[in-house]
This record gives sequence, structure tokens and C-alpha cells, in this order.
Amino acid sequence: MSARWPRCALIGAGLIGASLSGAARRSGMIGHVKAAGRSLSNLETAVIADLVDAICEDPAEAVRDVDLVILAVPGVRSIELLPELARVAPPTALFTDVGSVKAPMVAAAEAAGLGARFVGAHPLAGKAESGSAAADRDLFVDRLCVLTPGPSGDPAAAEDIAALWQSVGSRTLFMDAQEHDRALSMTSHLPQMTAYALSAAVAERNEEASLEHLLASGFRDTTRLAASNTDMWKAIVALNRANVLEGLDAFSVQVNAIREAVAAGDDAALTEIFEKARRFRHELSS
Amino acid sequence: MSARWPRCALIGAGLIGASLSGAARRSGMIGHVKAAGRSLSNLETAVIADLVDAICEDPAEAVRDVDLVILAVPGVRSIELLPELARVAPPTALFTDVGSVKAPMVAAAEAAGLGARFVGAHPLAGKAESGSAAADRDLFVDRLCVLTPGPSGDPAAAEDIAALWQSVGSRTLFMDAQEHDRALSMTSHLPQMTAYALSAAVAERNEEASLEHLLASGFRDTTRLAASNTDMWKAIVALNRANVLEGLDAFSVQVNAIREAVAAGDDAALTEIFEKARRFRHELSS
Repeated sequence: MSARWPRCALIGAGLIGASLSGAARRSGMIGHVKAAGRSLSNLETAVIADLVDAICEDPAEAVRDVDLVILAVPGVRSIELLPELARVAPPTALFTDVGSVKAPMVAAAEAAGLGARFVGAHPLAGKAESGSAAADRDLFVDRLCVLTPGPSGDPAAAEDIAALWQSVGSRTLFMDAQEHDRALSMTSHLPQMTAYALSAAVAERNEEASLEHLLASGFRDTTRLAASNTDMWKAIVALNRANVLEGLDAFSVQVNAIREAVAAGDDAALTEIFEKARRFRHELSS
Repeated sequence: MSARWPRCALIGAGLIGASLSGAARRSGMIGHVKAAGRSLSNLETAVIADLVDAICEDPAEAVRDVDLVILAVPGVRSIELLPELARVAPPTALFTDVGSVKAPMVAAAEAAGLGARFVGAHPLAGKAESGSAAADRDLFVDRLCVLTPGPSGDPAAAEDIAALWQSVGSRTLFMDAQEHDRALSMTSHLPQMTAYALSAAVAERNEEASLEHLLASGFRDTTRLAASNTDMWKAIVALNRANVLEGLDAFSVQVNAIREAVAAGDDAALTEIFEKARRFRHELSS
């Protein structure tokens, strides 16, 4: 069976990009992959692990003569690169990305004249480690990948990118990019911010009197996300600023309601908040 | 080997009390255990599982003729019961408890004239399920148990209770009760409140547009605590109110700092908070 995209450019061979490349080469959806990136040693690791076929430093060089361009650098960098890559890549090449914030990406693709040839993708997958050394061809198995074609998107292209993700084991879901960004600000970006805030608050108190030995599994679970890559998260909140602020405000409403109920000893108010929270969490398994 | 305490009263045969009873009977530190509680079916479950020997409904009845009284009901209830139990129990009986908030308990024991015979204990262990049906004799293995003797506490009694916890596999640490309550408000009670606030905020947004399918492992980890027993947590925050409020305020300082840095696009400020949080969390293993 021949590959759907015989020649592919991977811009950024980090955890997600290298994992997708390895998985989609294995599934047969993509053929030869030329990866571009800033870190030569990271690219070489990807070649040695047989996740990509060839490497180069310049993204523009990677996209010449390809059928598919996968943008797997931080969203801000993808947006910077798009105009040049749109000029240099063959006029039939399809573009996709793997970023966590979709509306600015879709808008940048439209602005670069790629509206019909761009399909945004956001795989809800990851792990604490980063770089191609952490890549895993099974990273996307049984995970959801949200697809966000733009307003002038080509339905056939969207179905092709959905097939790419299904070939690596993911479930796929089409969503409007703005709706995606607003939803993810609550389900993903807000938990990240609360984990940072909690870890920072305990870190500050810890400077007063050592608390490490009193941190049990509850604290560890609640702050696990705070160990994530700082640069990646700064980029995500910068791209999704308005939604993240709205999420933080909705969260602070709840924190303040708890604070007032505790201060007033208002049992009924505490019951209402705690039970609303407990029921919602309890209904999600594990 | 004869038991250190041949006759023991267990007031409350919930998860912690029933697990401790089963574990300390197995270790040989305690002999016959008579459990008192409000739910007859829960008590019968404890008997059938061989976690306790006898049961009764009235706590005052359970403490007659015993060497050790283990209070394992919610802290507010323990404080209510102490004066009567102090009158009824033999004048040589030692008292201990397993509650999460220690200063009010120590004060209540002093007020009941039990200062020299009371040693507070807080095992940092638990699980989502409650009741004697969820009891586990290995619940305390490799966990920390904090011991808080009162101002007029007897050092020999404190060492005895430390030996009890060591016999069920725990590490033990002596702390001042007030210092314990202030520390735990950050390491345990605050994560619980942030999990409630996050789950409640997402639950409210979920009423607008369904988000369940977009909740990945990060949200699940960050809100796992919100599935806990509501009544238990209402009782804990009521007993540790001032510390919980101080912890919530310290947390809100961090949330507001993140909010302002996101709103202003202040990369340096975000880096400082995120990195402080990341370093602290990263240094804790797993």
C-alpha cells in the first residue's frame, strides 16, 4: 500500500511531532519524513530512533517538494513561520499542526492564503518528558484528537487529516476553533494554572518552615501538572489569553465563595459548592 | 506476647478506625476491641471482617473497663464526646485520636482533664472509599503519622502511641499541634479546597456546553480530591478555620499574580511564578 502522503515535512521534532511522525510512518499514512528543528542533537536522536528519515535546520528547506507539512513547534512559532512556508511549499501541499490553541492558528493559515489547505489538530496527549528522546509511537492510542478546519476549509482535506490521526489510534472530533479554545481554557489551561498557583503558594510557605515531609498523595496529584514545561505553557496562555483570563475569573468566583462560606461557618453554602464539585468529579471515572 | 493494651475501645469504625483496629490487633499491640458507632451495619461489617471483636451503640458503654480509647469519629464529634468519655473510662485509660486537625482536640482533652493521658495522632493515609467495608490493615504502611501530645502530656504515653503506629508500619513524627494544623492547612486542606473550586468551576461551565469529552488526565489528577467525602471536609475546615482562610488567601495571591501577568503579557512575571511552582513540584518525586 502506498502512503497517502509520500513526502512529508515535520517542523519541530519534539515529543508530539516525533511521536506522530514515528506512528504515522508505522501506520503507512506518511512516507519519507524530513524534519526541521533548531536542535541538531534532538533531530539526530529522532533519526537514530527511526522516527524521521532526514533532517535539516531550515524549515523552508524542509517543505520543498512535500505533500504534507506538519507544524509541531510552539504555536507562536508556527504562526511566525506560516507565511514563508506557504510561499515555499508546493501549491498542493496540505498543512496541519498539533498546537493546543487553535483559533490564532486557523486565522494565521487563512491570512497566509492556506485556508483550503490547512486543518488544525490538537491531540489530547502528552507526558512530562519532552524532546524526541521521549517520543512514543503509541502516545496517541485511545486519545482524542480535536480537528479544527478553518472557515474556508476543504472537507476532503479535513477527512484526510482525521484519517491520519485515526491511523495512529486516536479518536477524532471536529470542532470550531474558537469553541475549542474556550473549552480547553477550562478543561486544560485552568487546571494547569491552578496547579502552578498551588505549588507556588506551598513553595513560598515552605521557605518559612519545611513542609516537604507533610506532602501526601493529594498534594502530589493536585500539582502534578506544575512539573510541565514552563515555556510551552507561557506560549499557550499568551495565545489563548482572553479565554484563560475568563477561566481564572470563573475559578476565583468559586475560591471566594468557599472562602466566604468557611469564614462565616455557612454549612449550607459549603455543602452546595463541595457537593457540586464532588458530583461532577465523581461522575468521571478514575 | 501479651498485648500492650489488652482491652481497647474504638469510637467510630470508619475507614481509618477499622483499619487501625485490624492492623494493631494483627501487630499484637492491642487485644480485645469493642467498637461503638451509629451505623449498626457498618459495625457488623467490621466484626465479620475480623477488624473488631465486639460492638455497641453507646460510646460511653464501649470505654468502660478499657486500657486504651481510640477516637476515630469526625473531630467535632470527638470533641463533643470527650468530657463524658473522660468521666466514664477507667482513670488509667490512655486516649488517642486519628483526626486531621489537632489543636482543638488537644485543647478539648486538656479541658476534660485528660492532658497527661491524651496523645493526638494524625495518620497521613486514606482512600476515596469510606466505612469499615473499605478498611485495609496495610493502609498505614510506609505512611507518616504525626503525633501531637498536649502541653501537659506524658512523654511515656507519647512513646507508647508512637509504638502503636510503628507497629502498623507507619513512620512517626512529633509536632506541636498548632504547628501541625498550620502546616496541614497548606499541604492537605488547601489542595482539597482548590480541587473543589476547580471541579465546581468546570461543572458550572459544563452546564453551558458539554466538556466531559475534553477532560484529560491533567484535569482528573488536579481534581481527584474533589471526589472525597463532603461531610468529612466540612468538619475539617470548620475545626481549622483560621489556618484554612490564611491558606486560601496565600493561594489567591498566586492566582491573582498569574492573572495579572497573563493579562499584561508579562513574560518575566509568568516565568517567575511558573518556575517557582515547577521547581518545587519537580523536586518531589512522582
